[in-house]
Amino acid sequence: MKKIMNEPEKIVDEMLDGLVFTEDSIVERLPGTNVIARTYRSEGKVAVISGGGSGHEPTHAGFVGKGMLAAAVCGPVFTSPAPDQILEAVKHADQGAGVLLVIKNYTGDVMNFEMAEELAAMEDISVDHIIVNDDVAVEDSTYTAGRRGVAGTILVHKIIGGAAEAGLPLKELKTLADQLIPSIKTLAVALSAATVPEVGKPGFELAEDEIEYGIGIHGEPGYRREKIKSSKEMALELIEQLKKNFNWHVGDRYGVLVNGMGATPLMEQYVFINDIQHLLREEQLDIAFKKVGSYMTSLDMAGISLTMIRLKEEQWLKWLQEPVTTIAW
Amino acid sequence: MKKIMNEPEKIVDEMLDGLVFTEDSIVERLPGTNVIARTYRSEGKVAVISGGGSGHEPTHAGFVGKGMLAAAVCGPVFTSPAPDQILEAVKHADQGAGVLLVIKNYTGDVMNFEMAEELAAMEDISVDHIIVNDDVAVEDSTYTAGRRGVAGTILVHKIIGGAAEAGLPLKELKTLADQLIPSIKTLAVALSAATVPEVGKPGFELAEDEIEYGIGIHGEPGYRREKIKSSKEMALELIEQLKKNFNWHVGDRYGVLVNGMGATPLMEQYVFINDIQHLLREEQLDIAFKKVGSYMTSLDMAGISLTMIRLKEEQWLKWLQEPVTTIAW
Repeated sequence: MKKIMNEPEKIVDEMLDGLVFTEDSIVERLPGTNVIARTYRSEGKVAVISGGGSGHEPTHAGFVGKGMLAAAVCGPVFTSPAPDQILEAVKHADQGAGVLLVIKNYTGDVMNFEMAEELAAMEDISVDHIIVNDDVAVEDSTYTAGRRGVAGTILVHKIIGGAAEAGLPLKELKTLADQLIPSIKTLAVALSAATVPEVGKPGFELAEDEIEYGIGIHGEPGYRREKIKSSKEMALELIEQLKKNFNWHVGDRYGVLVNGMGATPLMEQYVFINDIQHLLREEQLDIAFKKVGSYMTSLDMAGISLTMIRLKEEQWLKWLQEPVTTIAW
Repeated sequence: MKKIMNEPEKIVDEMLDGLVFTEDSIVERLPGTNVIARTYRSEGKVAVISGGGSGHEPTHAGFVGKGMLAAAVCGPVFTSPAPDQILEAVKHADQGAGVLLVIKNYTGDVMNFEMAEELAAMEDISVDHIIVNDDVAVEDSTYTAGRRGVAGTILVHKIIGGAAEAGLPLKELKTLADQLIPSIKTLAVALSAATVPEVGKPGFELAEDEIEYGIGIHGEPGYRREKIKSSKEMALELIEQLKKNFNWHVGDRYGVLVNGMGATPLMEQYVFINDIQHLLREEQLDIAFKKVGSYMTSLDMAGISLTMIRLKEEQWLKWLQEPVTTIAW
């Protein structure tokens, strides 16, 4: 698998330097760390921090900025960042109102972020955390107890980030997240596997005519492998699974995010959301928010995920729609 | 080559419907056409229109909106749109101040856009055109006499679009473009070929350890094929070629665009611009504008292009930096 890179072990370091060179009006890199922080300061407001393994770009650093994340902690490829890195981000980002950690549900991430939370408490910084587990494909996976956190995480960043910017205190943000996270569900289909730079070969094998439903963003196994289908048929499978999980009713208000996994062209993503459009019209749902693009990727994996959010509160939609200053939203 | 699609011959039609479903606050599709027009109206200002074959998404429809293009004419994959489609875009977009057509330098595009210009003149619409030929790789190519138009085109859209929004008349926009276009130069390197949906196999073959410098956005041959190199070495090759073409001096002001060809992850694009950063520092240039992302793609091609723009005028930089309301800028 050919890649544009130098030494694999330096890929995250070089990526972050390239990112900050390009986007220095929005982000900075905390010296000696892999933490990307926003240049904007919001005095007296809760700082929302996320992070995890790298390889999902633009997640998470692309969502750092006014109205979304205060900082992103960027681990090695597909590997959780260490607690000391997370602690650096917390200490830097805290503006006196405390810090909320947004964790994707992987065992390593949960452990390291919670450890950083304890370390921060010892320094008298008020920290809490929320765990995103939007992937309805499987329970318990290669790196996870329970359901995995995937593309829906960026909707959490947007809504919680908007609420933090609006001045909600830490406790209310946590209550909001408890309502919000169960309202977001995602399911993916992979056409090909990602290649981790240090490994140099694809994480799994799919035949030239095969796809896999329910695959994770690190190549964790899904729930069914079959011959490739039309976009319409793949869209129907994902919608049927999400429908079972949401148990929706005619007229319910939803938002939709179609997410490319990394190597899937925008052309295919738009074809896919066109099929989703027709299926949701049949379901007679009120689709009040739509977004298409490669936001939560898995390196060079080809595939797509569909996230839906049940918009229970008018205010959630407003926070989704609010302009922000980030690299990638 | 697996793709998320239905019938290949409907892929552009379905993509455009998906695009408009997703982005209906910014764009609309003119009924019965493959023209994407902005919903924003700028009375009394010149309308800038671009277009060409599809398969380069988000180009061009992603750059339709306030401050950039008034409309994009979307041809079949890698095939010029027909003159009647271009004429529809012109008739719709003209706000009484005339229309400027931005054409990438391919024989079919130039012919069809010029024919549409003649048809529009017969309907008393004031139309002129400019031809972008930023690719310095080769002279004369599979579909081109002279140099090809590639990723630098989006910088033309941005600056000319900004100038049109500022109220410059058609004649002055044309004069501006005559200065601007020779100041923009691009060079690409491909790691793998794109697959056109109706063809179903890659347009050319590169071995598992091969790259090709100077490849075009439709897979036109480049100037050299060799074993894959490090990002640093590939960056050096592109910079050396651009240096020869620009003949720059210490302290000159430039902008840089690193563009993913479709299947290349953002991680690799940032690693690449990090190497570009170091090389340009050695050259002691003043880099006043930077941008990274997959903007002028070639379906699922893996690879990258480097565009540089000599920022001769302070105002060009201002137009580059000005906020716009588009899907993809």
